[in-house]
Amino acid sequence: MTYTAPLKDMQFVLREIARLDQVSLLPGYEDATDETVDAILTEAARFASGVLAPLRRDGDLTGARWADRQVTAAPGFKDAYWQFVEGGWNALSCSPEFGGQGLPKLVLAAVSETWKSANHAFSLCPMLTMGAIEALELVGTPEQKKKFLPRMVSGVWTGTMNLTEPQAGSDLAAIRTRAVPQADGSYRIFGQKIFITWGDHDMTENTIHLVLARTPDAPEGVKGISLFVVPKFMVNDDGSLGERNDAWCISIEHKLGIHASPTCVMSYGDNGGATGYLVGRENDGLKYMFIMMNAARFAVGMEGLAAAESAYQKAVTYARERVQSRAIEGSPGSVPIIRHPDVRRMLMTMKAGIEAMRALAYSVAAATDHALQLPPGEARQQQQAFVDLMIPVVKGWLTETGNEIASLGVQVHGGMGYMEETGAAQIFRDARITTIYEGTTGIQANDLIGRKLARDGGAALRGVVSLIAATQADAGSRGGPNFGSIASHLKTGLAALEQAAEYVVARYDGDVRTVAVGAVPFLKLMGTVCGGWYMARSALAAQAHIDAGDPDPFYAGKIATARFYAEHFLPLAPALARVIVQGGESALMLDEAAF
Amino acid sequence: MTYTAPLKDMQFVLREIARLDQVSLLPGYEDATDETVDAILTEAARFASGVLAPLRRDGDLTGARWADRQVTAAPGFKDAYWQFVEGGWNALSCSPEFGGQGLPKLVLAAVSETWKSANHAFSLCPMLTMGAIEALELVGTPEQKKKFLPRMVSGVWTGTMNLTEPQAGSDLAAIRTRAVPQADGSYRIFGQKIFITWGDHDMTENTIHLVLARTPDAPEGVKGISLFVVPKFMVNDDGSLGERNDAWCISIEHKLGIHASPTCVMSYGDNGGATGYLVGRENDGLKYMFIMMNAARFAVGMEGLAAAESAYQKAVTYARERVQSRAIEGSPGSVPIIRHPDVRRMLMTMKAGIEAMRALAYSVAAATDHALQLPPGEARQQQQAFVDLMIPVVKGWLTETGNEIASLGVQVHGGMGYMEETGAAQIFRDARITTIYEGTTGIQANDLIGRKLARDGGAALRGVVSLIAATQADAGSRGGPNFGSIASHLKTGLAALEQAAEYVVARYDGDVRTVAVGAVPFLKLMGTVCGGWYMARSALAAQAHIDAGDPDPFYAGKIATARFYAEHFLPLAPALARVIVQGGESALMLDEAAF
Repeated sequence: MTYTAPLKDMQFVLREIARLDQVSLLPGYEDATDETVDAILTEAARFASGVLAPLRRDGDLTGARWADRQVTAAPGFKDAYWQFVEGGWNALSCSPEFGGQGLPKLVLAAVSETWKSANHAFSLCPMLTMGAIEALELVGTPEQKKKFLPRMVSGVWTGTMNLTEPQAGSDLAAIRTRAVPQADGSYRIFGQKIFITWGDHDMTENTIHLVLARTPDAPEGVKGISLFVVPKFMVNDDGSLGERNDAWCISIEHKLGIHASPTCVMSYGDNGGATGYLVGRENDGLKYMFIMMNAARFAVGMEGLAAAESAYQKAVTYARERVQSRAIEGSPGSVPIIRHPDVRRMLMTMKAGIEAMRALAYSVAAATDHALQLPPGEARQQQQAFVDLMIPVVKGWLTETGNEIASLGVQVHGGMGYMEETGAAQIFRDARITTIYEGTTGIQANDLIGRKLARDGGAALRGVVSLIAATQADAGSRGGPNFGSIASHLKTGLAALEQAAEYVVARYDGDVRTVAVGAVPFLKLMGTVCGGWYMARSALAAQAHIDAGDPDPFYAGKIATARFYAEHFLPLAPALARVIVQGGESALMLDEAAF
Repeated sequence: MTYTAPLKDMQFVLREIARLDQVSLLPGYEDATDETVDAILTEAARFASGVLAPLRRDGDLTGARWADRQVTAAPGFKDAYWQFVEGGWNALSCSPEFGGQGLPKLVLAAVSETWKSANHAFSLCPMLTMGAIEALELVGTPEQKKKFLPRMVSGVWTGTMNLTEPQAGSDLAAIRTRAVPQADGSYRIFGQKIFITWGDHDMTENTIHLVLARTPDAPEGVKGISLFVVPKFMVNDDGSLGERNDAWCISIEHKLGIHASPTCVMSYGDNGGATGYLVGRENDGLKYMFIMMNAARFAVGMEGLAAAESAYQKAVTYARERVQSRAIEGSPGSVPIIRHPDVRRMLMTMKAGIEAMRALAYSVAAATDHALQLPPGEARQQQQAFVDLMIPVVKGWLTETGNEIASLGVQVHGGMGYMEETGAAQIFRDARITTIYEGTTGIQANDLIGRKLARDGGAALRGVVSLIAATQADAGSRGGPNFGSIASHLKTGLAALEQAAEYVVARYDGDVRTVAVGAVPFLKLMGTVCGGWYMARSALAAQAHIDAGDPDPFYAGKIATARFYAEHFLPLAPALARVIVQGGESALMLDEAAF
């Protein structure tokens, strides 16, 4: 499979929309200048295209393999991983205290987009390591940090997150894995975890598992879950590896996609107990998970964007090369299918969706940087409120849209799209997990309408609405059919969002079941309208370049794409508002036996 | 995999919506009484559940295998096929003249839904045989009919359709396969065909290929394509099999799904020429294909419905069994996920979509019966016009909706949906081909707005619009929130359809490229509104039972589902109309180099 990072588009969003210049004013981010970030991004793009993308198809065909309680990574993955480590990529946004480069999340977002686009399965390994690093940074003891973090930050060891059990998927309250305290302060861990991404592999010497479990006297439910660090190999005080711990991968799953990412069933304590160490305070495990959740959900949202980008590149290439049928208005001979209006519509849908998703996601990454690095105060709180509100949208809307675009990628190829050798089908299969893991779209949507919207009476959303209204007014003040259409559709979309939000806020406490029927439609409405907002901002930024005399047709293209988005995506907004406001009751009328 | 035919739903549509009683009044269909059809359907359901469904998963894992220019069907398929033949299923709707049972297409639609739901890959083999039978019935010589049809009708031999070549997919004008006339009146066929479904297998002794090819002096393009019959084994005058013909499967494709259906590369004439016989008139091959196209496209549309039904059954079972998290309004303990509003919404979306698709498809099948069996005259012409208008909608909308529902089926399962052992992923993969083969959704949509809408100035559509308006008025005349909502949303939907149709008709000749951007949105709009029409008719029919004192909650369920459809599907209609009317220009603005 081939992949070329869309550097110009990425840079446009970094600079004009997410405002890298403002991020680089934050303390600690002074090095993140345009020039440095360009250089990093160019190098990341080279690595993604040259090393990761070529492994994608083989990784799918061969997959990670399991035998004798050990996983062997797909062909070429180990070598690629060490190039990744040696390039310093794993440490990109980690704290300099443990060897990281401390770059902004915004830069990580752009860089990791290239890995995710080039090779979804590979990218999951460092993503999970990053989650484990974050947990240890957050609440590990100084000793734990010293023991594990430097080699996890460099990537010499990888990390995993062990949450799910067969009876505890979305519902972590049902976790049963036990942690029995020992005289030396350690714990013995007993239990089975499933769906553990990269839970075992042969790319590195050690793997550091973060495991949710219950201590003997823990309260029931979510309040009795603690977090433990359980290394695959024990680590001696001198840093050398000790005994093999009693933590084993006892099988891997046969999945629809991401075959090169081993999804492990992990068994702890089959032979006397796996040695683990409490991380943070007892019974606070789930609280820590919630703190880290934003990063994980953001990262999965980025996978939706990344899948869409790789699907789009493949579809464009095919649509230019494939000659089939005359033009609908007549032509001397057959034409490349990119000339057929329906193929154009599909490609424009992909392109516009991708640009909206990227602008939204990068902006949320930039807000995360502000929320992390601004001094405590109102500005910081505002940024955090924006991030909290938008995370379920990034996770839910980008993955749902990413799946739709991956499916369009298959469709553009016609019959060839159904043939695995083409690669469009793999992107489609790989992407399908993204609306599921790290919380399904339904989970995101319930988080959005409950914790993020109803709980504050719509205050955070009103902040966003006023920003959108300002952009809308700005677009409306420009003349011409492009901005006229952009402004008009954004206005209708925004009104639909406000109407639906009012309904949710007003009815949530009194009739939560009925309102929750509209949760996913509301998430899609938010995504659609926020996408339109960022597309309008892109168009305005592009117009500024044109007004300044820049002759690059790239900018006119941005405006045309924003108009397409307005005319093809935003009309959905009033439809979704109608579903939310009117469709709750009928979804719940039927007796359960009638299904 | 398990499957249970939804007999009660099917019978409701057969009797109340598609009006089997009126079909059985047509000459030749007198035997198709309610009782007979119930008995046939019950038996078909038993065969689908007991024989076909259990093979689906193995058929996916093992697939059809190819070696040494021969295909071996997936495990158990040969045995199942012969049970199929012995049950007389292949002959169901074929002409009695050649051993068929001559049952209406409406009955075939219902019966074949069960095969398609139970085992998509298996069902393709008889579907292609039926296409080949139809071609020979249509224009075969008496001798050809006598030689091939009895054993194709019984199913002792299977048939294939050979259209596609590497450079000729949607564009059959580009066909290059050659047919060279011989002194004895036969032809030698030379060329390669791809994507030939069930092009070779070991289930039967012989396979009869229908092949499009060009004679030496044929005009270029679509006007120079002729149809030939090319048996795998020559057939002697006494009916015994003769020499192996020079028609070979030289490989099969590695596909996203339907692994048990061998998709063959067929090579004709590598060893001197395959012997073939002209079917019908020289150079009229494509005309015959067009005549048969309605049946083939209808059959693929049914696959969309069938995939949705099997995805739905699996999702409902899981949603009842899987216990996870407390109810959103509070509950003593965890509840089956069917109680969660978002899961309910997904299941209702699946259920409502399926019921709308089934009512629409069966009604088109019934209209086909009328168009075939009514005496020549206006009534017959009206039925044919309706069929011609609706076929692209059945093909395009049912397959697009079927794919969405199959994806929801994965989603309801959460993480388990991504595991192949669950089976939801297989349905999702299998279904993905349906929007592609027999003409992509884009091809269907261009057929719809061009040949079916613009060409007659919207006359056929106006006929449908007035029928919808009558149903809408009928629903509106009932009181209460259910019919009130149904009538109100149907009214809005119908207005959107009329507005979009006016736009297409008015602008098609003058600005076909811009209008064609809206082709697929128009197809979806048609499907959505016609679905709403049939759901309203279902609700009215159900209300009549309730009014007559029938206490079966099935009928109240029909009304609730129709209301859900109105509130969750029909709001899309004005959005699609807006896309069609306003979105053409922006899709075509970008320079091709900007992609």
